[in-house]
Amino acid sequence: MRLCRIEVAGVPRWGLIEEELVTPLAVPPWEGVRKLGGALPLATARLLPPCEPTKIVAVGLNYRAHAAEMGKELPVEPLLFLKAPSSLVAPGGIVVVPRQSQRVEHEGELALVIGKAATKVNAGQALEHVLGYTCLDDVTARDIQRREKVYARAKGFDTFCPVGPWLETGIADPQALDLEVRVNGARRQKGTTADMIFPVAEVIAFISHIMTLLPGDLVTTGTPPGVGPLVAGDEVEVEIAGIGVLRHRVA
Amino acid sequence: MRLCRIEVAGVPRWGLIEEELVTPLAVPPWEGVRKLGGALPLATARLLPPCEPTKIVAVGLNYRAHAAEMGKELPVEPLLFLKAPSSLVAPGGIVVVPRQSQRVEHEGELALVIGKAATKVNAGQALEHVLGYTCLDDVTARDIQRREKVYARAKGFDTFCPVGPWLETGIADPQALDLEVRVNGARRQKGTTADMIFPVAEVIAFISHIMTLLPGDLVTTGTPPGVGPLVAGDEVEVEIAGIGVLRHRVA
Repeated sequence: MRLCRIEVAGVPRWGLIEEELVTPLAVPPWEGVRKLGGALPLATARLLPPCEPTKIVAVGLNYRAHAAEMGKELPVEPLLFLKAPSSLVAPGGIVVVPRQSQRVEHEGELALVIGKAATKVNAGQALEHVLGYTCLDDVTARDIQRREKVYARAKGFDTFCPVGPWLETGIADPQALDLEVRVNGARRQKGTTADMIFPVAEVIAFISHIMTLLPGDLVTTGTPPGVGPLVAGDEVEVEIAGIGVLRHRVA
Repeated sequence: MRLCRIEVAGVPRWGLIEEELVTPLAVPPWEGVRKLGGALPLATARLLPPCEPTKIVAVGLNYRAHAAEMGKELPVEPLLFLKAPSSLVAPGGIVVVPRQSQRVEHEGELALVIGKAATKVNAGQALEHVLGYTCLDDVTARDIQRREKVYARAKGFDTFCPVGPWLETGIADPQALDLEVRVNGARRQKGTTADMIFPVAEVIAFISHIMTLLPGDLVTTGTPPGVGPLVAGDEVEVEIAGIGVLRHRVA
């Protein structure tokens, strides 16, 4: 099943994508998938970020080869940070390079949205709390990140969190997905979620022992190697096999 | 004016405190202070955290003497981090020491709630975006913080953000407030907001050039010296002159 959020007559709603059509839903999908009104052509729908998170929890350095390219030791536990919800950008949206940074980089990632509250769940049950999976670009002001060590500012600028285009609920194994990031059509990042140091289920379990994950919360799981700079005019694609392609531009 | 959030017949609402009474409000105070129904005795009201933030933005090391006691250099710009909204605890609530930490500490702080969206405002206009001021305990797992450097986990555990008891809107000068933290009645922290490295107006302006602050967002401004450990059974009071006393327990 493919779930999205769309704007219908100015009101944000959840939607169900079937073939090339999207049907608005009456309530959030974790309360039941109930259609509301007629279907619209997906091609003309205005897609929103496919979640309304109370928080965005991210994992740093979750691929060995990316930790190596950053010159960092491998973490012994997931390294968590938070991104500000005000940084969310809809599919097809624009990442704005802020004046404060001379080095903004892409980090394509597998992300997931929580469908059932999770407090102190174990890894064996963790995936039952996932509503669906999507693509995310954890845009980072690398110069600020290197200077400050804490990540909130470097990764929290407005527009630094493109996510989408939709949630795919039918992913049986989130550790078997190919991921690729292209900038202006040229491949920059390539990896597979099989290379994660902490698999998705362990990440969710770990977070849930610290902070309660609520329905709609967004969790992003780290980036494979190949991160690099973005400049105004760039067109970015984050593609994950079995999910789709998240596109955004840079201004 | 004193604003709070209360539960009325199971529904969370904003409230206006006058003398020893609290009157529920029809809409958030930034849409107008409109009373809804009769007043209740404040003494029996169930106070909630006085905000529903889309994000909690905090400033680290904003008092020279606290930076010194932490063995840190003075920051040249505000050092921002985010606390998870799931860490909020109502006035009179309980901070739970997690099993993962052997050293949980109090950090009493002046906090504020945004009343008007702020994007790229300058310091001269910043305070116009404040709805009111309150007390906050930025509870921190110090051992995890020292180990990880990023703050999201160490400061993001469920119950690690007691805030309240209410918002005081009539603070003419947020840089002239005495702050004191007591644990079991004994003074632990004492300071004045006059000693902030970056005053409140500069903090808001700085954040607003990175991330849009929305009505209801919570900003906390750093802690004066005297931070120290908390153990189960402790009773904590964060008192700020002109605002009131935030109380919480530890379990």
